[in-house]
Amino acid sequence: MDLTFRKADEGDCALILEFIKGLAEYERMADQVVATEELLREWIFEKKKAEVIFPCADGKEVGFALFFHNFSTFLGRAGLYLEDLFVLPEYRGLGIGKATLKELARVAVERGCGRFEWWCLDWNQPSIHFYKRLGAVPMDEWTTYRVTGEALKELAE
Amino acid sequence: MDLTFRKADEGDCALILEFIKGLAEYERMADQVVATEELLREWIFEKKKAEVIFPCADGKEVGFALFFHNFSTFLGRAGLYLEDLFVLPEYRGLGIGKATLKELARVAVERGCGRFEWWCLDWNQPSIHFYKRLGAVPMDEWTTYRVTGEALKELAE
Repeated sequence: MDLTFRKADEGDCALILEFIKGLAEYERMADQVVATEELLREWIFEKKKAEVIFPCADGKEVGFALFFHNFSTFLGRAGLYLEDLFVLPEYRGLGIGKATLKELARVAVERGCGRFEWWCLDWNQPSIHFYKRLGAVPMDEWTTYRVTGEALKELAE
Repeated sequence: MDLTFRKADEGDCALILEFIKGLAEYERMADQVVATEELLREWIFEKKKAEVIFPCADGKEVGFALFFHNFSTFLGRAGLYLEDLFVLPEYRGLGIGKATLKELARVAVERGCGRFEWWCLDWNQPSIHFYKRLGAVPMDEWTTYRVTGEALKELAE
């Protein structure tokens, strides 16, 4: 298998959405996907709030990774944050996930980023073990707080 | 006290760095600050990887909030992520932190963001209580994994 990476462009919104839905089904959260091709076009390719690469097996897109830049005040520079990584079920176990993480680490270093981060569900022991072997450290002491929907509107008033 | 907000510009790097150091001292992590005025200028104002607003009491900057846009694949749009919020010790207890969170929630809604997020140390009970009262939900099941320094270079190879 020849594994390459391709940067997504504006013509790829349907494919990105397909992979997002695949990921949501895998996580049994398909009912939470409200993304549309139009929204992806607007926020990824017009407003440039994220970037997407596709791992390609023999030229065929077999998954996606969506990432953006976060920021560390202590380091005074951006980091690279991987929001989602998905590989089609029939292409798992071939090292595509690891290769994608390595590709993003390469992008992070190339751009001068100080960190490469992502998050993981606490019960996902196989992934946790895998991430630690790659040199990732769990930020155990920290919890993300989220305001969304009506609560966000209320807070904004 | 008249509380206003001012968006930081390129001339504010020294002030931003001063507040970053103030925050690091408060967190007893001052030795971890490697940010410089030049780095902040490059990454915030040239590469535009983050934004900063200052809460101002009677026109004087009394703290800072640094934020950037993250992204939700399920929502298909960006969120607003607050990386750091700091208020000078002598100005605490006056509602400036809450007003700053409300200001950022307003920015998030204005820009069409689907979420407003930040993270918090698990032992910081007063803050956790405060955040929950504002409508924030802890993403308890998730842990962030970080690769940095030599481990990042190795992963990139």
